Amino acid sequence: MIPRYSRPEMVAIWEPQNRFRIWLAIERHAAFKMEELGIVPPGVAEALDKAQAAIDARGGFDVARIDEIERVTKHDVIAFLTYVAEFAGPESRFVHQGMTSSDVLDTCLAVQMSQAADLLLAGLDRLLAALKARALEHKLTPTIGRSHGIHAEPTSFGVKLATHYAALARGKARLAAARAEIATCAISGAVGTFANVDPRVEEHVAAALGLTPETVSTQVIPRDRHAAFFAALALVASSLEALAIEIRHLQRSEVREAEEFFSPGQKGSSAMPHKRNPVLTENVTGLARVVRSAVIPALENVALWHERDISHSSVERMIGPDATVTLDFALARMAQVVEKLVVYPARMKDNLLAFGSLFNSQRVLLALTQAGVSREGAYALVQRNAIKAWHAKASPDSAEAKEAGGQRDPFAWYLARDAEVTAALPKAVLDEFLDEDKALAYHLKQVDRIFERVFG
Amino acid sequence: MIPRYSRPEMVAIWEPQNRFRIWLAIERHAAFKMEELGIVPPGVAEALDKAQAAIDARGGFDVARIDEIERVTKHDVIAFLTYVAEFAGPESRFVHQGMTSSDVLDTCLAVQMSQAADLLLAGLDRLLAALKARALEHKLTPTIGRSHGIHAEPTSFGVKLATHYAALARGKARLAAARAEIATCAISGAVGTFANVDPRVEEHVAAALGLTPETVSTQVIPRDRHAAFFAALALVASSLEALAIEIRHLQRSEVREAEEFFSPGQKGSSAMPHKRNPVLTENVTGLARVVRSAVIPALENVALWHERDISHSSVERMIGPDATVTLDFALARMAQVVEKLVVYPARMKDNLLAFGSLFNSQRVLLALTQAGVSREGAYALVQRNAIKAWHAKASPDSAEAKEAGGQRDPFAWYLARDAEVTAALPKAVLDEFLDEDKALAYHLKQVDRIFERVFG
Amino acid sequence: MIPRYSRPEMVAIWEPQNRFRIWLAIERHAAFKMEELGIVPPGVAEALDKAQAAIDARGGFDVARIDEIERVTKHDVIAFLTYVAEFAGPESRFVHQGMTSSDVLDTCLAVQMSQAADLLLAGLDRLLAALKARALEHKLTPTIGRSHGIHAEPTSFGVKLATHYAALARGKARLAAARAEIATCAISGAVGTFANVDPRVEEHVAAALGLTPETVSTQVIPRDRHAAFFAALALVASSLEALAIEIRHLQRSEVREAEEFFSPGQKGSSAMPHKRNPVLTENVTGLARVVRSAVIPALENVALWHERDISHSSVERMIGPDATVTLDFALARMAQVVEKLVVYPARMKDNLLAFGSLFNSQRVLLALTQAGVSREGAYALVQRNAIKAWHAKASPDSAEAKEAGGQRDPFAWYLARDAEVTAALPKAVLDEFLDEDKALAYHLKQVDRIFERVFG
Amino acid sequence: MIPRYSRPEMVAIWEPQNRFRIWLAIERHAAFKMEELGIVPPGVAEALDKAQAAIDARGGFDVARIDEIERVTKHDVIAFLTYVAEFAGPESRFVHQGMTSSDVLDTCLAVQMSQAADLLLAGLDRLLAALKARALEHKLTPTIGRSHGIHAEPTSFGVKLATHYAALARGKARLAAARAEIATCAISGAVGTFANVDPRVEEHVAAALGLTPETVSTQVIPRDRHAAFFAALALVASSLEALAIEIRHLQRSEVREAEEFFSPGQKGSSAMPHKRNPVLTENVTGLARVVRSAVIPALENVALWHERDISHSSVERMIGPDATVTLDFALARMAQVVEKLVVYPARMKDNLLAFGSLFNSQRVLLALTQAGVSREGAYALVQRNAIKAWHAKASPDSAEAKEAGGQRDPFAWYLARDAEVTAALPKAVLDEFLDEDKALAYHLKQVDRIFERVFG
Repeated sequence: MIPRYSRPEMVAIWEPQNRFRIWLAIERHAAFKMEELGIVPPGVAEALDKAQAAIDARGGFDVARIDEIERVTKHDVIAFLTYVAEFAGPESRFVHQGMTSSDVLDTCLAVQMSQAADLLLAGLDRLLAALKARALEHKLTPTIGRSHGIHAEPTSFGVKLATHYAALARGKARLAAARAEIATCAISGAVGTFANVDPRVEEHVAAALGLTPETVSTQVIPRDRHAAFFAALALVASSLEALAIEIRHLQRSEVREAEEFFSPGQKGSSAMPHKRNPVLTENVTGLARVVRSAVIPALENVALWHERDISHSSVERMIGPDATVTLDFALARMAQVVEKLVVYPARMKDNLLAFGSLFNSQRVLLALTQAGVSREGAYALVQRNAIKAWHAKASPDSAEAKEAGGQRDPFAWYLARDAEVTAALPKAVLDEFLDEDKALAYHLKQVDRIFERVFG
Repeated sequence: MIPRYSRPEMVAIWEPQNRFRIWLAIERHAAFKMEELGIVPPGVAEALDKAQAAIDARGGFDVARIDEIERVTKHDVIAFLTYVAEFAGPESRFVHQGMTSSDVLDTCLAVQMSQAADLLLAGLDRLLAALKARALEHKLTPTIGRSHGIHAEPTSFGVKLATHYAALARGKARLAAARAEIATCAISGAVGTFANVDPRVEEHVAAALGLTPETVSTQVIPRDRHAAFFAALALVASSLEALAIEIRHLQRSEVREAEEFFSPGQKGSSAMPHKRNPVLTENVTGLARVVRSAVIPALENVALWHERDISHSSVERMIGPDATVTLDFALARMAQVVEKLVVYPARMKDNLLAFGSLFNSQRVLLALTQAGVSREGAYALVQRNAIKAWHAKASPDSAEAKEAGGQRDPFAWYLARDAEVTAALPKAVLDEFLDEDKALAYHLKQVDRIFERVFG
Repeated sequence: MIPRYSRPEMVAIWEPQNRFRIWLAIERHAAFKMEELGIVPPGVAEALDKAQAAIDARGGFDVARIDEIERVTKHDVIAFLTYVAEFAGPESRFVHQGMTSSDVLDTCLAVQMSQAADLLLAGLDRLLAALKARALEHKLTPTIGRSHGIHAEPTSFGVKLATHYAALARGKARLAAARAEIATCAISGAVGTFANVDPRVEEHVAAALGLTPETVSTQVIPRDRHAAFFAALALVASSLEALAIEIRHLQRSEVREAEEFFSPGQKGSSAMPHKRNPVLTENVTGLARVVRSAVIPALENVALWHERDISHSSVERMIGPDATVTLDFALARMAQVVEKLVVYPARMKDNLLAFGSLFNSQRVLLALTQAGVSREGAYALVQRNAIKAWHAKASPDSAEAKEAGGQRDPFAWYLARDAEVTAALPKAVLDEFLDEDKALAYHLKQVDRIFERVFG
Repeated sequence: MIPRYSRPEMVAIWEPQNRFRIWLAIERHAAFKMEELGIVPPGVAEALDKAQAAIDARGGFDVARIDEIERVTKHDVIAFLTYVAEFAGPESRFVHQGMTSSDVLDTCLAVQMSQAADLLLAGLDRLLAALKARALEHKLTPTIGRSHGIHAEPTSFGVKLATHYAALARGKARLAAARAEIATCAISGAVGTFANVDPRVEEHVAAALGLTPETVSTQVIPRDRHAAFFAALALVASSLEALAIEIRHLQRSEVREAEEFFSPGQKGSSAMPHKRNPVLTENVTGLARVVRSAVIPALENVALWHERDISHSSVERMIGPDATVTLDFALARMAQVVEKLVVYPARMKDNLLAFGSLFNSQRVLLALTQAGVSREGAYALVQRNAIKAWHAKASPDSAEAKEAGGQRDPFAWYLARDAEVTAALPKAVLDEFLDEDKALAYHLKQVDRIFERVFG
């Protein structure tokens, strides 16, 4: 988590102010219930409310002061309680009764992770909205589909975006599930037995904070929940990476089908004034690696010793903010990229037609088989013409280029000259296949159905 | 995946016989629907049914023969179709019409991963049943809870097992969700546009195989689904590791609270005949590392180039079998360990009481505060007696050992001699706290509620 | 490790035959030294030599028989010794005296990993030789250098290959260092104290097997050595991936500067007969992910409990063969790709000149500053012409394309029409900069020096 | 990288002040050489020296001002150069001539990583010194060696520490090698061809900064170097983890052989005043996970597109400081732990003897075989007595405990009563084996040699 890749809303979740506010809320709700149960005398919750109000009035918690106390007590929760006592007065001696530090720390972490998840879900919503809008805009913008980086058959740019929309919508559903899993409250004492604290306190605090009581805790909330959360982040990050890499490919000099928005005064390169680089999506590619790297330590945190050891703590203090802040930033950056993406439909068309109608090869193959040619025979027929057509376009010095290079569509030209082909397929059929507009309509005829599946 | 850590049921899922059987089923269901839609003439599905019957009659697919064909065609699906044609006769030329190899490969992988998930879910059920049975058996078997490896407060061995039950039940829920995500069918052609294959074919094949049609595919099923699956496996594996490490701790020579079952003729060590080592749970610890290691490559597989590249394929050919076979084996091994675990309640009691009633320190602290002593004062009072009691038991050469080492419960003994303590707490109260049976009952009084939460 | 991605030489290293042969050699060398030291009577080593000869005569170890014995003894080394005893006769009771199983297992693993490393080093040599040969062949083949996927300045294809050569040469040096680290021998008994075995036995066995005696072992050889080995493999794999991705980029339809060799009968796609896909390098990309995934479990293996636990064993039984076999295969595949790579210098030239002499923008910038224009002023001058030139070539519908699209070199054309530019730079200077041959010579003038650094 | 786990020396390396100072040094040395080569007029280096002096005089770089400029230029190096120009005057227009930003950034990163490595090497030296001192102190302190967490044979606490010393010394050697690899300088221009910058400039800057000229760069220094560096950090971290886990085991309540130093006022637990937890080593365990997690993203950074993409940058901005700061902190923490570790030799002895002389079982086994008993027979003889002896000590309610539980050494007692044993081994031999002092001397007789190997 470094300022360059951070947004203030997410950073604030992990800042001491927010943490201390949550700690106080936990203690306050616990005290309230303990009062109700007669465990502590009345007035404790009220004293804590007043303390929070007083702290607010002075502009928030005095973090430096709390740190100072901690340097003496060497215990963060005790330092905090001592500070709060300065505002809450004598009632504060009843605060935290029968509770253990982890009751406060782990429940607070659950609140913070839930808050972080909410921001991330909002970030996903923005990105999904952008993807949907641009997908609808380019629903029927033809572009060549590529497998292995090699031209295959046409698709639409809208379908490309719909694919990423669907993946990120799945990522969102996984994150929402992980958020539900992480949002638990544990106030169960030193080894989770509720020996010194009534389970009804936990239930009350959970309800007050929008959490679920932890099924069974052992001083700590079990770490498989946290690991599942980080795995959900990594899945979103990897889908972001997929989208980023698509855009980086589209922007490369030889492709130029889309470009990141380039603000007027921006410099692409200090040395080469002509350059416009896809730096935002390259950046997201790197950020995805960072988010992903939190998964393994989070999984290693699961197997704590006996009822708990504290090895997970330092890991979470780092990967908690790092992974959420980084993903939040990447989501915002990616939303902006998609919203402002400069798309070049004409260039997509040019690339699509770079090898004439070669993208129809499979359709011709199928037509030949349906016309009675064996599959192997049809394959051989198509391939021999396809390869010639490829060379005619791809290799300026080839014999084929000399023979058919000037043809807009050497594939059609060669097919029409292949007696075995024309014996099986009437010219009219071939013509229809190879007519540009009709061919594209043929390839895009199911886009409506795909969009219905994706966007409902 | 090596025989030593494999079970035949899971291995069979990944074997060529199963793969070819699924391929044939996919082609058969597709052909059936194409007949219905009038795309291919009637009789193709029937011919494929007959082919499967004939292949069954000869004892299954001739894998060597298919491999031989592949060496010529250099294409696995074509080799397979050629082989099937030998049984299906002339109708086979209508098979695979408008489909692309990935339609078969990816849908087959979805079936295999679903089958694997089902085995794993069954493995989890067995382990969960074992954990539940042993948890109920030891619901009130007292044992010391340990944080940081240090004695804290009592819990029950049943609660320990319930904790692992709850974690693995969550793991099961996550795996079930991942299974649902992975069980999709794609029959959508070269770049997923259904240009040459009707979407109704996909819908039919999906339904026939118990799958859902993929929302949007791009020749391939999007790899975030697979990554989510491997993440779910890793989460289960990490919870297995947690349980394995608990048992390894319990078996160590100084603890000896539980032991893996040791079969009569078994040798623990070739060199040291007295040894009984927790090798099964050590083994599970290692296997968990292996399962976990599949997550990052699976995440790296998400960002394929454009509509697909084939970099994911080699990864999945390895981690698919490896991660599922290894986890399956680990689950079975762990179920066996739990089922047969030798538990030593007497030894648990001995350890629990190793430092007398020191585990009541917090309760005494709370009672002192409730009796009006400040929290800081109470802490100091308890700590000064607790530390003496600790030394009396822990350090045979200490002054305290000389003073109170013979005492069964030096903590009680010291407290009773501390005038400031007895001034605040009447002897009767202290006695009740420090009575072994009453103290244990106090600590275990909420076990019922915990069990209700975990087991319902 | 699956047959599809395996070469027999590497697989053989991990097969039982090789393992048992090494075990026997270890026992034999140990026995020899024990004889010399008078610990066992003479004749034991000779008996073991005869046993190996007899086993060779029958065609190798009877693995099934050894497995059968293991099913009874449940101990691999004991089963092996029992089998060997059948050939070695009564002297075999002196074999393995004072040794522990790990003495045999870990030393054997060291031998196997050394053998594997040797094969990998040979694989690297072949690939390095191929890279060097092709680099020399294309030392001065001009091609556009790309940062961010965007055309930057010219380089040569030979320099590209030299870069990968240098990276893989570093990888080789790291692997050689890791090989030296892993090649240690431990024959030190149950906890590494040599209590029951003389250290001179270890020294002798080490020397006989080409190993170094382990500095200090604890029944096992410390696992940081193994982790360093897997890290070295991962570094090589990642450099292979870098090369694979370069080639995949060069082969994409829009670039077409190089292609994997495509054998005459090969089918690129069952559906699209015209396709030639870079499947070998895509495959290497995936294999690199697999090799990399061994690093984390290997690192997790380092922290064993006390003198050893056996959690590392299952991990190594899998990642040992998997990572070495996979990397070996990837190296061989990559060597073949480089050896046979089809390079298209004409296409490289076309791409290089796709935007005219725009790649000279920095040089013009420098010349302007040296002619006295401020850096900012020069930047603005170059950029305004560069952007127009870019549009003229990149956007067929742009005003610039209409204005200067027909120009072979719109950058030169615009510069020549910019009075502020020509005021600072005499036409002759500009002409020299923008002359194609001279410009390329300018950019490639240091290639000799680079080659000297890389290839010596 | 968070303050809680950071030391100021390492943090300072990554702070803007240090970065800007290095940038200025790079530009200064480059300018000096360019002057010498006549590329820029004399006086530029001197102007930069004066600028640095002026900046020093004002208390360092004005980071806020540079950030402010960057918000306009959107380019970090240009913002920096603009700031420096305010101090350097008109000569600054000759600064950075023909260089590209990465020349400055990557060379600076090399300097920072070298500085970080030097701090880490110093941290390792301190830890190694502590380990050596404590190892010598406890060279012959007997303690039980444990495999699988189960008592095996005696070793010394000094040997344990020597083992960790040896592992960390290897880690240091690997880190030193990685430091050498990372310490390269690249000043080679936009795609590494030296088109606009003379290679002698690079050579001069390298020498001035204590770096080696990069063999071949491509705008950037190849990222396999950085990945090797992070792998070296992870190896050290994993060896730290191994040591941390050893200490955590030794401190657990049932073992109590060693303890982290506990400062007088320290509170182990807010709830349980008696607790002393190994929190420092638990913390190191977690920190090791964090350091390790940098390896995979660093490896993923290797395969950049063509001459470079910028995806690595965000990764390194995070893992660079995070991994080095965290490891630095962990090393310092661990050194402190070892230096102050409280060791309990008496308790080690108690644990060692907890099962009498059972740890001699292998020695008895060997003696029986040397007395002519077959290996299988000897094993059976020893095992039947060993298991009875184990039960006598381990299971207070067992028949064996009733029979021989009162014996200090039930193993000796049972052996002496086993006629088959005594038939083979004279009582005097057995007595010597089982005499505590002689037995320990037997087991520790090679400690000198081990220490010589480790410490030289």
